[in-house]
Formats: sequence, C-alpha cells, structure tokens
Amino acid sequence: MSTTKGDVKKNLEQKAYNMRANALRMTTQAGSGHPTSALSAADLVAALFFYGMGYDPHNPHNPENDRFILSKGHASPILYAAWKEVGILSDKDLQGYREFDSVLEGHSTMRFEHTEAATGSLGIGLSIGAGMALYAKMFKKKYRTFVLLGDSEITEGSVWEAAEVAAFYKLDNLVALLDCNRLGQSTETIHGHHLDRYAAKFEAFGWKTIKVDGHDMMQIMHALDKAQEADDHPTIILAKTVKGYGVEEAENKEGFHGKAFKKEELPAILKRLKERFADVEAEKLSKDILFEEGRYGAWQKQFGKQEYRNMTSIPDDIINNEKTEEQESNGCLITELKDPHYELGEMMPTRKAYGQALTDLGRVCDRVVSLDAEVKNSTFAELFEEKFPDRFVQCFIAEQNMISMGVGFELRGAVPFISTFASFFSRAFDQIRMAAIGQSNVRLVGSHAGVSIGQDGPSQMGLEDIALMRSLPGSIVLYPCDAVSTHRLVGQMAEYNQGISYLRTTRMATPVMYDLSQDFFIGGCHVLKKSDQDKVCVIGAGVTLFEALKAHDMLKKDGISISVIDLYSIKPIDAKTILECARASGNRIITVEDHYLEGGLGQAVAYEVRNTDINITCLAVTKLPRSGTPEELLAFEGIDADAIVKAVKSV
Amino acid sequence: MSTTKGDVKKNLEQKAYNMRANALRMTTQAGSGHPTSALSAADLVAALFFYGMGYDPHNPHNPENDRFILSKGHASPILYAAWKEVGILSDKDLQGYREFDSVLEGHSTMRFEHTEAATGSLGIGLSIGAGMALYAKMFKKKYRTFVLLGDSEITEGSVWEAAEVAAFYKLDNLVALLDCNRLGQSTETIHGHHLDRYAAKFEAFGWKTIKVDGHDMMQIMHALDKAQEADDHPTIILAKTVKGYGVEEAENKEGFHGKAFKKEELPAILKRLKERFADVEAEKLSKDILFEEGRYGAWQKQFGKQEYRNMTSIPDDIINNEKTEEQESNGCLITELKDPHYELGEMMPTRKAYGQALTDLGRVCDRVVSLDAEVKNSTFAELFEEKFPDRFVQCFIAEQNMISMGVGFELRGAVPFISTFASFFSRAFDQIRMAAIGQSNVRLVGSHAGVSIGQDGPSQMGLEDIALMRSLPGSIVLYPCDAVSTHRLVGQMAEYNQGISYLRTTRMATPVMYDLSQDFFIGGCHVLKKSDQDKVCVIGAGVTLFEALKAHDMLKKDGISISVIDLYSIKPIDAKTILECARASGNRIITVEDHYLEGGLGQAVAYEVRNTDINITCLAVTKLPRSGTPEELLAFEGIDADAIVKAVKSV
Repeated sequence: MSTTKGDVKKNLEQKAYNMRANALRMTTQAGSGHPTSALSAADLVAALFFYGMGYDPHNPHNPENDRFILSKGHASPILYAAWKEVGILSDKDLQGYREFDSVLEGHSTMRFEHTEAATGSLGIGLSIGAGMALYAKMFKKKYRTFVLLGDSEITEGSVWEAAEVAAFYKLDNLVALLDCNRLGQSTETIHGHHLDRYAAKFEAFGWKTIKVDGHDMMQIMHALDKAQEADDHPTIILAKTVKGYGVEEAENKEGFHGKAFKKEELPAILKRLKERFADVEAEKLSKDILFEEGRYGAWQKQFGKQEYRNMTSIPDDIINNEKTEEQESNGCLITELKDPHYELGEMMPTRKAYGQALTDLGRVCDRVVSLDAEVKNSTFAELFEEKFPDRFVQCFIAEQNMISMGVGFELRGAVPFISTFASFFSRAFDQIRMAAIGQSNVRLVGSHAGVSIGQDGPSQMGLEDIALMRSLPGSIVLYPCDAVSTHRLVGQMAEYNQGISYLRTTRMATPVMYDLSQDFFIGGCHVLKKSDQDKVCVIGAGVTLFEALKAHDMLKKDGISISVIDLYSIKPIDAKTILECARASGNRIITVEDHYLEGGLGQAVAYEVRNTDINITCLAVTKLPRSGTPEELLAFEGIDADAIVKAVKSV
Repeated sequence: MSTTKGDVKKNLEQKAYNMRANALRMTTQAGSGHPTSALSAADLVAALFFYGMGYDPHNPHNPENDRFILSKGHASPILYAAWKEVGILSDKDLQGYREFDSVLEGHSTMRFEHTEAATGSLGIGLSIGAGMALYAKMFKKKYRTFVLLGDSEITEGSVWEAAEVAAFYKLDNLVALLDCNRLGQSTETIHGHHLDRYAAKFEAFGWKTIKVDGHDMMQIMHALDKAQEADDHPTIILAKTVKGYGVEEAENKEGFHGKAFKKEELPAILKRLKERFADVEAEKLSKDILFEEGRYGAWQKQFGKQEYRNMTSIPDDIINNEKTEEQESNGCLITELKDPHYELGEMMPTRKAYGQALTDLGRVCDRVVSLDAEVKNSTFAELFEEKFPDRFVQCFIAEQNMISMGVGFELRGAVPFISTFASFFSRAFDQIRMAAIGQSNVRLVGSHAGVSIGQDGPSQMGLEDIALMRSLPGSIVLYPCDAVSTHRLVGQMAEYNQGISYLRTTRMATPVMYDLSQDFFIGGCHVLKKSDQDKVCVIGAGVTLFEALKAHDMLKKDGISISVIDLYSIKPIDAKTILECARASGNRIITVEDHYLEGGLGQAVAYEVRNTDINITCLAVTKLPRSGTPEELLAFEGIDADAIVKAVKSV
C-alpha cells in the first residue's frame, strides 16, 4: 500500500510529537538535561529518522547506513526519543536517562550502540561528519552523512574548518542541519534568527544553503529532497526554530536552557502538548502503513516494517549487530610489514622513517589513510601521498578539523594516521580528548619534538605533548630514537585498537642504532648499556638517548659505569625492567628528556619507582626555550651529555 | 618642508627594498628561516611602518602607539628589517638573527622589546589584535591595531572566531592585512590568488574588505587611508602578493618555503634586487625629509625624525622605555579586597564564590576584565557582568579566540580573568601554550572540574586540566575547596604577574570550612587534621578534600588516625609541609583527586617525595567516566571516602 506525501508529513509530525513528549518525560525524570534544546530540534530529527535517512534499523554497523551525528550533543533526549520511535529503545530505557547504569548518557557516548560519535563538546560534529563523508567518497560507499548543528556552536572556529574542507572536497554526500533556535545558554546568539547571516557565511565557504521553517514538516521534507541533489557542494539546511517549541511558557525565552521541568509541572505540560500536536489518525496510520517515501522509505522496503523489541534489555544474540570486517578490528592485521632498509649508523630523522614506515604500511593495509595539516614535507607524510594519493587527505592548516575528520574515518573502518608538528596537536586537544571519550583509535604522529628543533624557536617546539597524550584514557605514548624503532612502532600503532596512540618524532637526523632483529612492543624498553659496575641507570628517549650514550662513553673514561635505557614506550611503561635495571645500578635513576618536566617521561618514571628505595633525578626542559642551535639549547636546558655527566657525578 | 604622496610612495618603496635585502641577508646568514614569506609581505609592512601606523619609535610602551601583530610569525625577518629601518636595530643586530644570544628569534618573542605579541603558531594574531582593539574601545584609547595575516593560516578556525567577535564588537579600530601569496608550506592554499573568495568570507562575517595589489605601494597607501574611516566595521586589506617577490627564480613557485638562500647565491640575488628596486634618489630623499603623511607622518611631527642608535646594543638608561603604570605591574595591587560574607558550614559552590570574588575585585581594581565563552551562568562570571557590564566581554562559544583576546587585553594593561568549563580550556590549549611563551599573565578559571559534575557525562568533565596547566612554563595551578579559600586565591591570582594562573572550581556546593582569619598563598597548603597517632597523611583538594575529611571521621571510629592536607596550591607545591606532615604520619601519603592520574595532583606529590622513604598511594580517575550521580561516580573511580578508608587500611 502506497502513501501520499501528505500522509508521510502527518506521520512525521506525529513522530515528532511522540519524541517531544518523551524528551520532556526523560529530562524531568532525570531532574536534569536540556529539554528546550531537544524540543527545537524535534521536527528536524523526526524528518531525518523517518524520511531523510536510510538505514538498517536492525544493525547500526551496516556499512551502508546513512550516518547521523548529533553535534549539539546536549540535545541527546531527542536522539534517544527517535530511537524509541524506531523501536530500539523502550519507555523503560528512556526512564534510565542520565542514570549510572543506563547507556543513555547526558551527552550520548558510544556506550549506546546507535550513537554514531560521542559528542558534547560543541563544534566537533561537522568535522566527524566530513570525515565520514570523505570516507564514503574515498571507499566508494553510498551512504550519506547528516549532522545536526546548534546555532550557538557555529561560533566555534572548528565549524568553519570543517565547512572549508568539506567544500574543498566537494562533499555533496554531506548534509548539515542548523537548528537555529536563537538562544544560547545564557544569552542570544550572535545572529539570532537571521538565517540570512548564516546563509551568507556558508555560501561564502562554498556550501549550498536551504532555508526552512524548522517546524514546518513539508518544508523540511522538501529541503531534504533538495539536499539529495549531488552537485559537488555540501548542503546546509538552515532551520528557523523555536527553543522549547511545544512548551508555550518556555518558547523562545531566555532562562530555560539546560533546565528540566519539574515533576509537578509535567502532567499539564504533556496535556497541552497533546492537545496541540497529537493526531490520533496519524498515530493509527503509522501502525498500519509503510511510508515508502524518502531514503527512509526505500530502506524500509528492504528491511520491512520495524517491530523490534528494545535493544538494551534483550540479549545480544537476538539482534543482528554483527560488525563488518572493518569495524571488527579497527586496526590493521599486519603479517607482512616488510623490513626497512636501514644501515646501522646511517643518519636518518625519525620523522622521515615515519613517512617511510607509513608508506610500507599503506602497501599491506588498504585501510590506512594519512591526514596532514599542510606540513607533509616536514612530517614526511608526503612519502605516503606519493604512493597513495587517493588515501592521503590534505586538511590544510586546520588541526582541529583534521583530528575529528580522522575520528570520522576511523568510525567507518579506516586506520587513520594523523600527523603534524607535536606542538600543534595542542591546537586540537579538545578534539583529541573527545576522541578518547569516544574510544576512537586514531593514530597521532607529532614531529619536531623538543628544543632540539633549534632555530625556529619555542612556538614550534613540542614540549608538552607527552603530558597531554599521557593524560588520555586508553592512550599509548611512543617515542622512538632511530629509524628502525620508528618503523617497528608504526607497525604496532597500526595494530593497536584500544584507544589513541601517539608517536613522537624528531626533526634532526639520528643514527640508526638498532638492527632489524630487535623487537619493539607497546610497553617495552631496551637496556642498551649494562655492566656489573653500574652506578646509575640513565633513562632517555628520542634525542636524549644519544646524549645518554655520549655520557656513558664520557663517564667510562673517568672509570664510571652507567646503564642506559631507551624508554621508547612512555605509556604504558615497562616498570619491571626499569626497576631491575635501577636496582643493578646502585639504586639510582637519572631521566633525561626533551620535554617539560611536568607530566613528562621523568615524572612518569618517578611515579613508577615510588615506594622503592630508588633515588631518581629528572633532567628536563625547565626554562622557557628560545632560538639557537640544538646543541646550545640542549645545554641551556641541562639535558645534554654534559648535564648527564654532571648529574651522575653528583649522585 | 612638505612632501607629495608620490615622494612618500618612492620613500616607502625604497624602505621595502632595504627590508627585502635585509630579510635575505638575515636568513642566509642564519642558514634557516622563511625569506620568501618575508618578501611577499615587504611592501605591506613598509607601508604600515612608515605610513599607516603612528607610534613613538623611542618607546614601545607608549600606550598610544598603534599596535602591529605579525600573525604570520615565520615572516619575522621582515619585522626585524622594519625595525632596522626605524633605526632601532643595527646591521649587527640583524646578523644575530636566530642565534642563541640574539633577541631576534626565528619567530619573534617578547625577548625583542618591540614585539607586540609572541606568534608562530598560526591563526592567533587576529585574536590578539581583536583583544587590543576592544581594549582600546573599552578604555578609551586612540591607538589602532594592525594584524598581518598569511593566507595559509586563514583555514585555522580561530581566525573565524576572531573575525566573528571583531565584527560583533564593531572594531573599526582593527585593520587586518592578508598577505595572499598563494603558496603554503607544501602546496597551494585553498583559494590560491582568488581574493574574491576571501572577500566573500570576510564580508559574510561582517568585515569591510579592500582588495589591492600587494606590491603596488600607492594602492596599499590608499587602502590604509580607506581603512581609517570609522564605520563600525573592522577592515581587512586583501593583498595579492607574490611569494618570494624580488628573487625572480623563487617567485610564485613551490619548493621555496622556509628555505634560506645559500651564501654563494646571495651576492647575485642582492645585485638583481638592487637593479630592480633600488632608487638612489629616494634613499637620499629619506635622509633629508620628514614624510609627514599618514598616521606615521603625524606622529613623526610629534617625535621628530628618528636618529636612534640601535637599541639592543646600548644601555637601557639611554632609551626612554619607561613603562606605563599599566605595564609596570600587569597585576592588581590589592590593598583593600574586602572580606567576603560567608558563614562556616554554609553550602556554596566554589564557582559561585569565584564570581563573587571577581566582582569584589572589580570594585578595587578597574583594570579587571572578565571574558566568558557563553557559560557565564555556569561559571558565575555573570555576577561580574551585572556590576561591571562595561568590563565584561562576551566571547560566545569560541574559546580559542577568547584566550588570545585575553592576551591582547593583558598586553595593553588589563587584568583579564577568563572563565569557562575546565574541560573546554582544552579547546584553546595551543593559545594558552602561546600565551605562556609570550609570558602573558592571563588568569584562567575552569569550572565543572571532575567526575563530580555528575549527570552531564564525560564530555563536560574537566579531567586533564591540572596536567595541562601544570605543563606551562611559569604557570600556577590553584584548586580551592570552599568559598573562603576561593575568594582569597582569586585575590592572589590578580596580583600574580609571572605567568599564567589557573584556578579550578567545582560545580557542586561545598561547605564553607575556613574562617576569614586563615591565610592562603600561592605555593601553600593547609594541614587540617593532625594528631600524634596519625598513620597516614591523606592529601586532597577541591571535592576530594571533603571525602578525605569524611574518611578521617570514619577511620576515627575504628581507632585509626590520619592527617589531612588541603593542597589548594598544586603548582607551586608546598613540598616542605607535605614532607613534614607525611613524616609525622607513619611516612605514608595517600593522594586523592578528581582528575586523571597522569600529570595530576598525585603525580605532582609523588615527584616531590621522590628520594625519601615515604610511601605514596595515588587515588585518581582511571576509568572512562560516564553519567551518574556525583556520589556514584566518585565511588566508581575509587576517589570517595570509602575508597580512602580502604586505601588507608591496606597500607
């Protein structure tokens, strides 16, 4: 039985009504949350879920599903209410909203399986969506990506980074929707209800814009139809909405952001909502009829009318949620990453070894993708681009968007390696933080670490990157000193799929000091010097390892013996080997690192040897650095061989 | 003697020629740097320094000087070359470019006194300039602010954050210049030489745009004149330039970014440069005549023709570089910050106490300014706004720009307090990093710290802020537990002028536990519980302090005594008191914090007690948190009173 567009419209309006009522129930039950931000978006989300998007409601992992990113993450009640309408969540599930044992968190996370991406920090969703859309272009997938934006978050610069890159890559499979409800958290937004101002901006950035009344379902449907037209431009549907739409006393008024209505108010609110929106006929219709319209209708034909029990309360095996091969690993299964051609003693910057390893990786794993922020000739991502231009993404100088696009790639099944200067990852640290919360496995590679970059000065020196990356839940932090260890560790990163991995590389050339027989693993280290007479165990990584080795030789001439550890894995850390080596070295450790003291390698080691009788001295960057030669700067900060010798002699 | 515009033009062209030659000499001498990026900007900078801007060349601290921010910091040779033309630097000074003992760093820093703001991480300069321009509006200063942008950095979202806010505040005293040289570091920019694309964007963001040929001096002069017209809009001069202009073989070609020309090439390059640009007549003219045109000419009349010896080589007392009262302290000298009205035991969130303290501070120091990212009703910056709307800056949801605008304010003499959620400072960490490199004294206040915020979930929880802020050179990190300590520490922050200060506040209400007689200072702590029988010293801060006190009482019932320290100053840290207290408590410490383990309070303490026989256990957030009640989450992470009791019993 077929239906008219008018029937569909009625049905969508009824869905929106149900969703509004549930968003109100959920937030009042929880006693917190953002009902008014959910209400303004209800019609847009209903239209997306039951008209504009096509997806297999049985299986969130179906790689052909259209994707939906709720960039305004605080409107989560409307997302959960939509999945309730789909049939995936029950009333009981909704009642658990924001509770400890529920997967329906205040801002949706990956704990709810139908969440496409963890959001909540504003201005990130469009980047994730752009990543997914570009993935679809790159890997020939037909899905479309939809991103719901709030109007307050449009001031975040990251939105314009995403807008720029999405237009550059002609992502006509990307559709953004702006829920322009005029009101922010504490004041009016910059442009209020002036859709023209938003339109001018997005058009200037190369987007197609469509303006609608965000509570006129037919207008929304038409806009979604129009957004289907592939014409080399991403589309944004600018929807004028009313914050709190459906609760008259809160509509379009300040003072209602992030406030649940009181339990005693709710019955009257729901009664008025019903009087205003409920349509018994439409409700009945939707029980009997398949609405074969829009992308949703086309997919419904394929999968049948949904009559699912709710997902969170039934055993996993009843639901077909098999993951695709891509999602299964989200890491490369590398059996044949070929050995590199490095000669012992050969001078080779680890950043270049990274570029070469990544290229080798590209050969054995076709899901490896490289993202660059216009420094590919510094990070040597250009080596990958030369071989695999189709899997190289130039993100230009816009690190925030680069990170979240990488998250979008990874969520769809790619193995993204994202590289820039170590210092510039600080530009995108909120995006990295959110990637960690979203349990993403993006691989980050930061070059130009430390004062050893020399003349360019402190703005270009990565000096806090270890501290930043260590703080992330589930992260690993690697810092190889030579080309061989870099090669091996890049392979390990590709396989690591339990969180964010970070590799730190060096600008200057360092000698190849490992032969290919040597093993490297996450959480490992190498004891490079060891004797029966060691007085101190010196621990370095990257450039400072060579200073430690120099110090070893200098001290030897004075008859002083030290052990030396290459701590190439800073997190996790091989505490066992460190302790053993320190105990065999007079119970003394000296760490030396080209990084600030706080949160760095030294304090990581100091923490591991707490509650022992091991004495530790940490040499690190403690003075604001400046331009100079690498040698001058290592000496200035007291992290060169001379400083190590001095420290050894004084302990 | 008066001059024609044509004479001025010739003179400016000659200056630009001299600057080009010197930029080439400097970079070749240094063997590194970005000559081609300097060459494209030479005409723009010459026009600014000797026509468009008015300033007292004797005194960089004159508060009426027009300001110049080199946002494309890698073009530093052109900045130094301009100061050479002014007469402030000598040939010998220029020869030291990028050397360890020179103040002329690869990317200019505050070590060179005429640097307005440290730059080098791209996309930040416009925000600093917007801060300075808004400061001028707020404090009735007549200076204008000029920002030179590169075209590559326009993709940084922070530029659009600044563009938005500058237009919102109608900063018609702000002039940006885009050096559109088409080429980035490794590839063409997104829009190449299409000035129209940039114009459309800036116009959509509310800017006045003027397009010029960036090597046509008369066009540049006209544009600078036009930019003078105050009309409620900031202006951008879009200049089509040629990268490497003046060195024919490098002009408009890829592969020359960040590469100094070789010593053996230089003589021929300089020879051709001279043939093409040098004008003996103009050179002679400039020796004899005052060019009383433009803002520069007007100031020249006031200060006389410059005939200075170079500044870096002569004693300080010869130069009039007296700082204004504002610059002298860059902190408030508070003699009379009145006592707050808090009763012991009163429940009061520290975030609210912050808002109240800031308001009190506003009363005694009229240079205090509050910057907010549209969360003023969460951070309680709204209390300040109510009393001092003219010193409150709504930056909307754009944290990056907010930080750098704060830097701009501070550089001009304000005492900015910048507040948002602790987690969202991670959004602007590169800007914070650059503020630290610029030795800025911005005050940051992060609310909603830790899992104790509860239901909103991990995206809103500040869990790495201590690690981030600790890593900054010169920073201090404060974390009060109650309203009284918050009040006192806000006062301390106002006076602190040695770097970035950070205060962490809590969402939930906590009881007032200090009376007004108690002292608080940077680097201090309070021992709250102490007896002769203490078995362990428990160290907490913020919410966990109250868990520690609860644990103290619970353990007392079991006959176990512990000491408790309120570590309200995490950096600097009062190691002496901690050690004393631990030694009197069975040589045992348990730290407990609502923050990730890595880089947090516990690891800071663990580092301080290294090389002692003190045993330490660190309780911290180690599992990815979720929505739930504060109590559930503190228990989940093992940082509540029960967890402390358990830890005490097990050590």
